[in-house]
Amino acid sequence: MTDTTESPLTHPQAYMAAVDLGSNSFHMVIARVIAGDIQLLHREKQKVQLAEGLNDQLVLSEEAIERGLNVLAQFADTLKPFAPQSVRVIATYTLRRARNAATFLRRAKAVFPFPIEVISGQEEARFIYQGVAHFEHFSGRRLVIDIGGGSTEFAIGEGVQPLRLSSRNMGCVSYAMQHFPQGRISEKRFNRAILQAEQELEPIISSFKAAGWQQAVGTSGTVKTIRDIIVGLGFSNNAIERAHLLALKDHLVAQENSYQLDLPGLTDDRKLLICSGLAILIAAFNLLQIEQLVYCDAALREGVLYEMSDRLQHLDIREHSVASLQRRYDVDMAQAQRVSHTALTLFSQVRNSWQLSDEDALLLGWAATLYEVGLHINSSGVQKHSAYILQNANLPGFNQEQQQLVATLVRFHRRKIRADDIPTFSLYQLPQVVCLLVLLRLAVLLNQKRRDDILPELTATAGVQYLQLQLPADWLTQQSLLAADLQLEQKALKKIAFVLDCPGLADSVLG
Amino acid sequence: MTDTTESPLTHPQAYMAAVDLGSNSFHMVIARVIAGDIQLLHREKQKVQLAEGLNDQLVLSEEAIERGLNVLAQFADTLKPFAPQSVRVIATYTLRRARNAATFLRRAKAVFPFPIEVISGQEEARFIYQGVAHFEHFSGRRLVIDIGGGSTEFAIGEGVQPLRLSSRNMGCVSYAMQHFPQGRISEKRFNRAILQAEQELEPIISSFKAAGWQQAVGTSGTVKTIRDIIVGLGFSNNAIERAHLLALKDHLVAQENSYQLDLPGLTDDRKLLICSGLAILIAAFNLLQIEQLVYCDAALREGVLYEMSDRLQHLDIREHSVASLQRRYDVDMAQAQRVSHTALTLFSQVRNSWQLSDEDALLLGWAATLYEVGLHINSSGVQKHSAYILQNANLPGFNQEQQQLVATLVRFHRRKIRADDIPTFSLYQLPQVVCLLVLLRLAVLLNQKRRDDILPELTATAGVQYLQLQLPADWLTQQSLLAADLQLEQKALKKIAFVLDCPGLADSVLG
Repeated sequence: MTDTTESPLTHPQAYMAAVDLGSNSFHMVIARVIAGDIQLLHREKQKVQLAEGLNDQLVLSEEAIERGLNVLAQFADTLKPFAPQSVRVIATYTLRRARNAATFLRRAKAVFPFPIEVISGQEEARFIYQGVAHFEHFSGRRLVIDIGGGSTEFAIGEGVQPLRLSSRNMGCVSYAMQHFPQGRISEKRFNRAILQAEQELEPIISSFKAAGWQQAVGTSGTVKTIRDIIVGLGFSNNAIERAHLLALKDHLVAQENSYQLDLPGLTDDRKLLICSGLAILIAAFNLLQIEQLVYCDAALREGVLYEMSDRLQHLDIREHSVASLQRRYDVDMAQAQRVSHTALTLFSQVRNSWQLSDEDALLLGWAATLYEVGLHINSSGVQKHSAYILQNANLPGFNQEQQQLVATLVRFHRRKIRADDIPTFSLYQLPQVVCLLVLLRLAVLLNQKRRDDILPELTATAGVQYLQLQLPADWLTQQSLLAADLQLEQKALKKIAFVLDCPGLADSVLG
Repeated sequence: MTDTTESPLTHPQAYMAAVDLGSNSFHMVIARVIAGDIQLLHREKQKVQLAEGLNDQLVLSEEAIERGLNVLAQFADTLKPFAPQSVRVIATYTLRRARNAATFLRRAKAVFPFPIEVISGQEEARFIYQGVAHFEHFSGRRLVIDIGGGSTEFAIGEGVQPLRLSSRNMGCVSYAMQHFPQGRISEKRFNRAILQAEQELEPIISSFKAAGWQQAVGTSGTVKTIRDIIVGLGFSNNAIERAHLLALKDHLVAQENSYQLDLPGLTDDRKLLICSGLAILIAAFNLLQIEQLVYCDAALREGVLYEMSDRLQHLDIREHSVASLQRRYDVDMAQAQRVSHTALTLFSQVRNSWQLSDEDALLLGWAATLYEVGLHINSSGVQKHSAYILQNANLPGFNQEQQQLVATLVRFHRRKIRADDIPTFSLYQLPQVVCLLVLLRLAVLLNQKRRDDILPELTATAGVQYLQLQLPADWLTQQSLLAADLQLEQKALKKIAFVLDCPGLADSVLG
């Protein structure tokens, strides 16, 4: 389905694109920013049904992988004129859950030149909320529900500020496979699906109800289809109410099989998903006691676009996430600044040799200001606790691999490290991770005394798996403990085949 | 060595005993509480050198295990007339680190009828501080250093309130084996040992210096021996200064081998440990810039005694630790109280059938008020985050297994559980853990709605791996979602061979 809102793109460098690899469909939107506002130019949607290929063991089938890669190849063609920084590609539920997601991502690189970012469920809910919040202004609190193929997102917010975000593992594709196989429909099947959806929803209900809302909005193809049907059947002009949903349910039960369905607004590709989507929506109406729900055309990809336009203006929400974590965990900010200053000073001296990017500098800087969050749990084993928090906290703006990278840097900011300890990333190469890690470790080591007046001028030069750190000889001899630590560090880095060279070091440490 | 300060015990029920299974010696003190004060009656010390039997792979040798068990058998004889609640037995560094500690603890049960509590390094430091603080009153801030066989503890506090606690993995036995094997002494060996001790100390220096102190106190046999030698050599009347330590070091280096040492105050069993202990003390003097250190005769075991006398007065420091964690992690206290109320209501109905104790009730109640601490990290996967925090936080008053038990209960307070998930404890039997877990899970499940007005009267009866929970039939039919959750819970508990029986449940859930 292609819906070109404007003539073909002539100046792609002025445009930006967001791609959403959803569990049911892949979407692409292309837009331009005009006077700070986003003008949507082009939308493309391809049904892929990725979630259908996910089995009980969470392995994605070869067929589903190929369907996905085919669509990516088509998208790549449209995106050919785009610069890498003008495209963001977000993957959600299925690639978040699939155990063989790395295989998909690796094979995707061959046909699709843009990095694919897998995001957490909360991040997915946040993007959806942002899409709606920017798309349709509303002055009060708003509840947003997006029923996807594999997960359903819930958000409450005010203006562009989300207040509650949650992603539940239930979607119209997975529930269709589980509760309505081969299109079979019955009252019992419906009730079971609704009950299971209610159980899935239960843990967030009290918190969402406590936040409250004045308007409920539904996004996603499922909500659009249900809206179209109930309008088509004459139940409503626009807003969806619980009575309409129950009437539609009765109507569907009477049909017995989804293949026979003939309803206004129900396209063929939605026939097998309508019962499951309806069951999830009924569960949400029941537990959240929703009176009316209106459909909104914006969703995740629009949220991604708005965030891209923010970054163009150097507003990076990740800054806020990092600052909020620092406050929450009472980080010693003077020390965080010392370490990040040293890390970034060294970074600036080696970035060309190591071909590091601005984004690498950001990630290193954040790791350097967050490496002690774990002190909040215990000072003993702080590197493990900091990494645990960074790996598991909700960090708006970070995709899963960015978050994992910062956690990995922090995990090994001191003590021993082996090559096996470093996870495999799709967005980052191992040598790049090692370089950032070495810079962080040195910055922490050099600032162990937590004093501003102690460090001399640092000179670093770099090569492949190699860093030379020059320190004034007279300073080194005064700092015998630090010299001994640097010697230990040389040994530690040797285990990951990295050579740290400190001229004059051996002379300053007792034999 | 036996030092009986008073005639044999005639009314043991009025007495209490603390036993300290240290890495160098095992100690026992017996005391009585008179008008809230502790009167020490009897002290016993046996050299065991447990740490000497710990190899590089942290496996404790059969010989060391047997030495330990022999001494435990002797202590058991002295303690025969004591009631279990009048004896606390604390194990430190070696049993904390040894990978086969469980073997030692299992075999100890055969010869020694009192539970052995392995404690964390921070807990060890806290007990030592308490021992000193109660033993010798001092109005300012005090630094306490205890050089043990395997670890050295540092504490700063005011009155009985510790402010900084740390345990470093360096001790006079382990450093003797590493730096002064076969009693060899040299300047170079000394300097290496001092440097390594300084590196080990480095991470805590800035925080300890920031806290500051007016008096420095050393406990432990190592400090006592050093004090005795420098007094014996005429260096000092009492207090230890850095110059004395350096002079003693020179004196020792001149001897070349520990076996030849002939110094006033140096007993034979201390000859091989004096150099390593001195190196560690010099490192502490260097980095903390200590001017004077005085020896204090009290230590860990006295701290344990004081805490026992507190518990006699129903002052349980663990209450403070739990309350402090609740504050620190912003626990929803209304919910914590609901869940602990339900858990303890059920507990009171089944405690006789399941032969549970007051201590079990305490642990269950704490788990019930702490199960949501992980929300501070993320609401998604809260059970994992809560358990991580409880496993790794510093929880004064809890021994390692108590802390592990609370963490385990919290880890599996919801969702699936398999029998393999439950760790093996030395202090707790598996069925006991399962019983507490079932009570916590039910209490959480029944309070999912976070409302005070919802629960009917609960009636529970229990058998072996069996609990019958009676709920009013009319209430159950109104709470169809909760009924469905209870059915899921029946299935979940079946996996750990536990039968949850809820009469009338099947009728209230749709088929």
